[in-house]
Amino acid sequence: MNTPDDLSNTTTHPVKEFKFELEKEVQTESGTARLGQIHTAHGTINTPAFVAVGTQATVKSLSPEELETIGTQVIFNNTYHLYLRPGADLIAEFGGAHKFMHWDHPILTDSGGFQVFSLGAGIEHNVGKIANIFPGEEGGVLVNPKKSDFKSGESLVKITEEGVRFKSHIDGSYHNFTPESSIATQRKLGADMILAFDECTSPLHDEAYTAKSAERTHRWAQRSLDYFKANPEIHDYPQALYGIVQGGAFEKVRRHSAEVIGGMDFDAIAIGGNLGKTKEEMHQVISWTVEYLPTHKARHLLGIGEVYDIFEAVERGCDTFDCVSPTRNARNGGLLKRFDDDGTPLKKYRMNIKNARYKDDQRPIDPECDCYTCNHFSRAYLRHLFKADEILGQRLASIHNLRFMANMCEAIRQSLRDDTFAELKKDWLR
Amino acid sequence: MNTPDDLSNTTTHPVKEFKFELEKEVQTESGTARLGQIHTAHGTINTPAFVAVGTQATVKSLSPEELETIGTQVIFNNTYHLYLRPGADLIAEFGGAHKFMHWDHPILTDSGGFQVFSLGAGIEHNVGKIANIFPGEEGGVLVNPKKSDFKSGESLVKITEEGVRFKSHIDGSYHNFTPESSIATQRKLGADMILAFDECTSPLHDEAYTAKSAERTHRWAQRSLDYFKANPEIHDYPQALYGIVQGGAFEKVRRHSAEVIGGMDFDAIAIGGNLGKTKEEMHQVISWTVEYLPTHKARHLLGIGEVYDIFEAVERGCDTFDCVSPTRNARNGGLLKRFDDDGTPLKKYRMNIKNARYKDDQRPIDPECDCYTCNHFSRAYLRHLFKADEILGQRLASIHNLRFMANMCEAIRQSLRDDTFAELKKDWLR
Repeated sequence: MNTPDDLSNTTTHPVKEFKFELEKEVQTESGTARLGQIHTAHGTINTPAFVAVGTQATVKSLSPEELETIGTQVIFNNTYHLYLRPGADLIAEFGGAHKFMHWDHPILTDSGGFQVFSLGAGIEHNVGKIANIFPGEEGGVLVNPKKSDFKSGESLVKITEEGVRFKSHIDGSYHNFTPESSIATQRKLGADMILAFDECTSPLHDEAYTAKSAERTHRWAQRSLDYFKANPEIHDYPQALYGIVQGGAFEKVRRHSAEVIGGMDFDAIAIGGNLGKTKEEMHQVISWTVEYLPTHKARHLLGIGEVYDIFEAVERGCDTFDCVSPTRNARNGGLLKRFDDDGTPLKKYRMNIKNARYKDDQRPIDPECDCYTCNHFSRAYLRHLFKADEILGQRLASIHNLRFMANMCEAIRQSLRDDTFAELKKDWLR
Repeated sequence: MNTPDDLSNTTTHPVKEFKFELEKEVQTESGTARLGQIHTAHGTINTPAFVAVGTQATVKSLSPEELETIGTQVIFNNTYHLYLRPGADLIAEFGGAHKFMHWDHPILTDSGGFQVFSLGAGIEHNVGKIANIFPGEEGGVLVNPKKSDFKSGESLVKITEEGVRFKSHIDGSYHNFTPESSIATQRKLGADMILAFDECTSPLHDEAYTAKSAERTHRWAQRSLDYFKANPEIHDYPQALYGIVQGGAFEKVRRHSAEVIGGMDFDAIAIGGNLGKTKEEMHQVISWTVEYLPTHKARHLLGIGEVYDIFEAVERGCDTFDCVSPTRNARNGGLLKRFDDDGTPLKKYRMNIKNARYKDDQRPIDPECDCYTCNHFSRAYLRHLFKADEILGQRLASIHNLRFMANMCEAIRQSLRDDTFAELKKDWLR
């Protein structure tokens, strides 16, 4: 089931350095798409690539071997969650997150900064990063956070120049994250790719606040970088530090942030924060940003993983993307698929397996799909598992959706090799 | 990981007949233990064997391939659950439960009769079959049933000579099970081994009621058998019908039931019902029963699966056993293991992985265990998954516990081959 390039060079660490190899650039309608490889101590990531989210050191319901078979190249762990539970020191004792969770392929961790947003402004404003990305059970912190969960007017988060003070969603204890402590924590967790500490602003923040916050994020970026350089790896393989561009959906602020972060000595760049209220705004924000980014550094787009968004982001030069939606939708019975049985494109590329029309349907989710689930199980059986609230349903659906993402990214990579990306995009987004 | 005899002859159907092959009898302190093989269209079960419970056509959280690797030889589906959801006709359309759930090894279904007990008398009396077996989320019907869930004095079940009328726990609709409809339903589900329709009495029923109920169960047994013979298989492989001995813990009633059921033309025999209030009573009930059972028929002990009980049941001549406890305990963090790290025997052969003492424990659950979980994951990681309420924890624990049962049964079989069962039992039950 794996394509040959999915999981190459997986056990070659220790390697000397993190490296992004730009194989090919392809001019597109909206910018320059890129085909490349990110080399890490735990293997190579062929880009463009989707990063599966494994918030608590597990991609929900799946084993590491299943992820390998699916062709998942890289996973995303959340620093905030692992810092609180089981604790970064404990994971460090195990030799890092790879060994802790038995995943010998690349890992990316965030800085914990997104939780500043999802616990603070996200709850206060009741919005996510963009309209369809809400703080949720995986990438965010609270499941269905309600303002009423907290005392009126009380933010769970206090942001100062030094960093952020927050209250644990697990036991209510107070903690601080600073650029220095975030990097120190990520050194302990030992991901191959780690993120600078930032504040992720909300779409409801005005330009003045967003600009002020971006300036602070730039100072935090420098502090992250300084601490990163002064405090080497504690495990026996290199880590790469990504700077994060902020600036919301305000052109001036976003361009400035891209210029500042793009000019700093980071190994690679992540695009974070509020990307606007519509998909069109998001595309615009990406275009503003990439203009200032050095070509030779890998670019990660944070929290984006819908089919449509990935094509638009690739078209504009992003290399990797993480999002909870394929796995979260899977657990809710939303199965990724391009076409309905009559050949019409499915809305949001999803079918709802709980639908009564699948009650006695003996066909696999997608007869074209090569995943374990589609090879062995019918829609009727999957529907039964979901109706009966059986864990195996969530698992089989997660396998299918992640395989869909892996296959889609492989098709995108192939189209970049073949100079057929425009056709592929047109075909997928019709 | 599999021992060679665990999964032999798995795809040889259609075969001509169900067959129990008694390889060897071994005299024990309390009776005659048996080494044997149950041949079915979907493969051979080496006995004594543990039957993993997969109530809703799934052994919770596990894939069929995982069950194969574990060495699980046979699984148990619940007729009541599958009749209500997704429906026996639907499963019949798929060619039976094997194809529906992608499990090409033996399956056993019950008659639905146990639900008469767990929905009726079980709730009214608030007791399970024996003290430590309560109607639960798998084998039983309701999770933590409370009398207050129902109108005072209203039983969900009405038993008549004809059969039983009951209310669905899913949608409150009313249904009837009769011996004829139970067998018809089990013909549709297509398990290799099916059970006659019976009433399972409660430990709180008196001798008079138990005797009256047993007589009715005997009439139901004959009706089950008559219907079974008059209505052949609807799938292309044979099914075997087990008669069920009832009679509670009353010597006279139990002996009489064993004699009646043992004398009927069933393919094999199951021992069901109230087996007493203590383990000692249970052993007594088994001894009373087996005295009347034909040697050449396989014997299944219903709802029993604790380590101690299995040794005692094997010692008295039982061949197979099903129980939710290994998988249910797994999902609650109760991991099967003989000895604590200091060599002392563990109470109930279980450690609680949620215990704080395992917080940073890098060892596997059991360094002696050959399961996938013990080969790859630490106690600390498993504890983390349980504390973080991650599905993968339930799955890894279920793998371990079912492998424990498979290994234990293989050790028992080997000891019967080697004439060392008494020593093995003494060693395990010290």
